[in-house]
Amino acid sequence: MQSVTDSVKNSIAGSSFIRKMFEKGIELKREFGEDAVCDFSLGNPDVPPPSAAYGELIKIAENAVRPLGLGYCPNAGLPVFREALAGMLSEQQKTPVQAKHVIATVGAAGAIVAFFRAVVDPGDEILVPSPYFVEYGSYCGHFGGVLKPVRSLLPDFRPDLDAIEKAITPRTRAIIVNSPNNPTGVIYSKEDMQKLGAIVERVNEGRERPLYLLSDEPYRAFAYDGAEVPAVLPLTRFSVVLGSFSKTLSLAGERVGYFLANPDMPDVETLLAAVTLTNRTLGYVNAPVIGQRLAAALVNASVDLEIYDRRRKLMAKVLTEAGIEFTMPKGAFYFFPAAPGGDDAKFVDALLAEKILGVPGSGFGFPGHIRLSCSVDEAIIARSAEGFKRAAASLA
Amino acid sequence: MQSVTDSVKNSIAGSSFIRKMFEKGIELKREFGEDAVCDFSLGNPDVPPPSAAYGELIKIAENAVRPLGLGYCPNAGLPVFREALAGMLSEQQKTPVQAKHVIATVGAAGAIVAFFRAVVDPGDEILVPSPYFVEYGSYCGHFGGVLKPVRSLLPDFRPDLDAIEKAITPRTRAIIVNSPNNPTGVIYSKEDMQKLGAIVERVNEGRERPLYLLSDEPYRAFAYDGAEVPAVLPLTRFSVVLGSFSKTLSLAGERVGYFLANPDMPDVETLLAAVTLTNRTLGYVNAPVIGQRLAAALVNASVDLEIYDRRRKLMAKVLTEAGIEFTMPKGAFYFFPAAPGGDDAKFVDALLAEKILGVPGSGFGFPGHIRLSCSVDEAIIARSAEGFKRAAASLA
Repeated sequence: MQSVTDSVKNSIAGSSFIRKMFEKGIELKREFGEDAVCDFSLGNPDVPPPSAAYGELIKIAENAVRPLGLGYCPNAGLPVFREALAGMLSEQQKTPVQAKHVIATVGAAGAIVAFFRAVVDPGDEILVPSPYFVEYGSYCGHFGGVLKPVRSLLPDFRPDLDAIEKAITPRTRAIIVNSPNNPTGVIYSKEDMQKLGAIVERVNEGRERPLYLLSDEPYRAFAYDGAEVPAVLPLTRFSVVLGSFSKTLSLAGERVGYFLANPDMPDVETLLAAVTLTNRTLGYVNAPVIGQRLAAALVNASVDLEIYDRRRKLMAKVLTEAGIEFTMPKGAFYFFPAAPGGDDAKFVDALLAEKILGVPGSGFGFPGHIRLSCSVDEAIIARSAEGFKRAAASLA
Repeated sequence: MQSVTDSVKNSIAGSSFIRKMFEKGIELKREFGEDAVCDFSLGNPDVPPPSAAYGELIKIAENAVRPLGLGYCPNAGLPVFREALAGMLSEQQKTPVQAKHVIATVGAAGAIVAFFRAVVDPGDEILVPSPYFVEYGSYCGHFGGVLKPVRSLLPDFRPDLDAIEKAITPRTRAIIVNSPNNPTGVIYSKEDMQKLGAIVERVNEGRERPLYLLSDEPYRAFAYDGAEVPAVLPLTRFSVVLGSFSKTLSLAGERVGYFLANPDMPDVETLLAAVTLTNRTLGYVNAPVIGQRLAAALVNASVDLEIYDRRRKLMAKVLTEAGIEFTMPKGAFYFFPAAPGGDDAKFVDALLAEKILGVPGSGFGFPGHIRLSCSVDEAIIARSAEGFKRAAASLA
């Protein structure tokens, strides 16, 4: 019975490693109890939202008793939210941005899918440094786009700019950068970003169909040790920026993000009209209004990033003491250590035997490493120390 | 500069009539003042949400101060919401439904797009009785599906079942029914629905790729004069039902809906797994959690439908007194009267001259009529009476 398309059937069969670990985790927790399992598999921010969220939700509740308090809003978002975003992004991106350049979306994921729908023709290629967030392949694949990973440089996962430049063909429609990076936690340097921007400008000189630099930055606020995440808009006119409040406000489930097009982009109005249209016709219609109002009020707020920094330092200690090699992440909340012995599947299995959950790097297009998410309490990280040691020793 | 795809560029150019009227409305209101314009162009429910929404939002606010209170939830939805939906839908659909048969979605629009992504291969055909909600074409078109309208029978917009049966080809993947209907307000009879279910069962006898009956029913609760909206699941095993809380809870902007697959469908697990997957990979990830919690608590609640019924009776009076022909709607909150003289564009223009906004039937694949939405106050309907008379007289 062909109840679904073959392509979707295949996707179900090869479904995300992250989700598989999620299910394995549920199984282990059921068998051994919640406290026995150290689950580093999911990137679900577990820190409470800023305390101001409570008062803002009360205000929204008061608004809900009014006609159209929770009704449809313009497809591009509530004016109050777009204004707030424009203010925040002007500063962050070191470029004057107006509300009309910003579109409220169903999370950053909704933004990227709406963007791809607007610009991708079947056969178009999307470059991304690997390792990478595996859903990018689905996001462009819905519309016939083909993701082309370009392996990053070890040991510190810098993007390989020469290889990226060589991989560009007339069909390349976008280069994705995700910095701070999921799964490595690496922040790309200003120098590398400037070079990348220059490549994009150069390629676009003779082009009728622009090549876009797509900066997916849900983790922008998550930078440690005073690290700077370079502004993207000044790098090339052909830049678009996606972000969300999922991590900064621990609001992932409410699905609020944004799409920002560079105001200096040639024909930027057409791109904005297109993403506003696809945001509607893909069935999002508009970003959730309760979340929009909440994010508008808290646009510059953030969860306590010190919590994530302490976890980062503790996880570094745990891995070091277990003799596991890793690059210290400067951003996000992930570690991407090397698998002792080199086989990420074996390492994940050895960790599973210790009731520790991680995701094999193969799930991010980069075998030989694993991803550990520090969106869990410090106590869990501390508790995992002996298990990491035993698992690493078993593979040495 | 080809900043977007040609297909999206064309869509922008031919953008929705409804939105065009929306913009025209803003213009008129700016020029003549809010009170001077009678805007029947948009289906944005303007009645306040049930008063219980206030208390429920307060509870959600209290929940928001907890870790993961607003974090990601399972892609198919919060268990508490799916359970609530299963209970409500078991009764409504006269068929036992379990939580696993229901997926929470970003409105009914998100449900239909996720479903089409799961089942539509390029070249597949989707049948729909016309007039129809014009976005259906985009929803299946994203994935290469082709919408095939089948003209309904006048004067009362019954679906033409013979014509629908004749229009079925081996590539027909789904038949959409939308009852109570947008834009006509018609509720399909139990007899017609049973015949349609029988057609679907018959077609599927020799089929490897099932033909689905897709019931899009955001207006199910909006039935007047004791009219019954027949349950859909008993009609054919190959039925799927989409709904939302946009209208019943005046929650359209928060984007909460659901997808329900018939528990008796062969291989139903595959379809459910597929829609759960596409719900994730289309970037929805999960339906907004604040909305899910609100709808879970208010799953059987509703705005005051008496308000809509009074408006319906008043609009009927206004149109009758203006000598405009129409079928009395039994459901939803729309009227779809005939244009005096037969030209819907001319009628819309004549109404515009009276500062009355409606949408030409051409925008619903059915020229010669116009759509009027009664999601506005009775005072506005009353105020429009003289304008309707003059506009109709000018075309007689």
